Amino acid sequence: MKAIIHIGLKPGVLDPQGRTIARSLAHMGFEGVTKARQGKTIELDLSSDNAETAKLEVEKMCKQLLANTVIEDYQIEIVE
Amino acid sequence: MKAIIHIGLKPGVLDPQGRTIARSLAHMGFEGVTKARQGKTIELDLSSDNAETAKLEVEKMCKQLLANTVIEDYQIEIVE
Repeated sequence: MKAIIHIGLKPGVLDPQGRTIARSLAHMGFEGVTKARQGKTIELDLSSDNAETAKLEVEKMCKQLLANTVIEDYQIEIVE
Repeated sequence: MKAIIHIGLKPGVLDPQGRTIARSLAHMGFEGVTKARQGKTIELDLSSDNAETAKLEVEKMCKQLLANTVIEDYQIEIVE
């Protein structure tokens, strides 16, 4: 079983990486980009075979290590 | 229109961040994680209203700036 965790900055939190990407794209001639945000994805291979327990466990991992819940939101997707 | 770009290391490329995550989770008592990989997500707001043209344009952005195609794979998702 796999868990895919999408972690991104909360709305309103300054995203310097995203800004740099948008500015660089504009400099390179890509005019149509009005905004860019950068997030991260963590993919975990899990030995568990119960999707519900797995999700609860991954939720704990996010809170304790993977996400900075002060400034980041996360979404967990469990894939068979 | 939005483009969501998922960028991850190609299979076989060493992923030190992923390894660190897996090791840290194990140290914290999360025993069920057999492997972890880390990737990134870039979300672009686009002024274009043609999904097909937008995808081609984002493809160019990936090749020229956003992804390192030697070691990374990317997937583009266009969202209305």
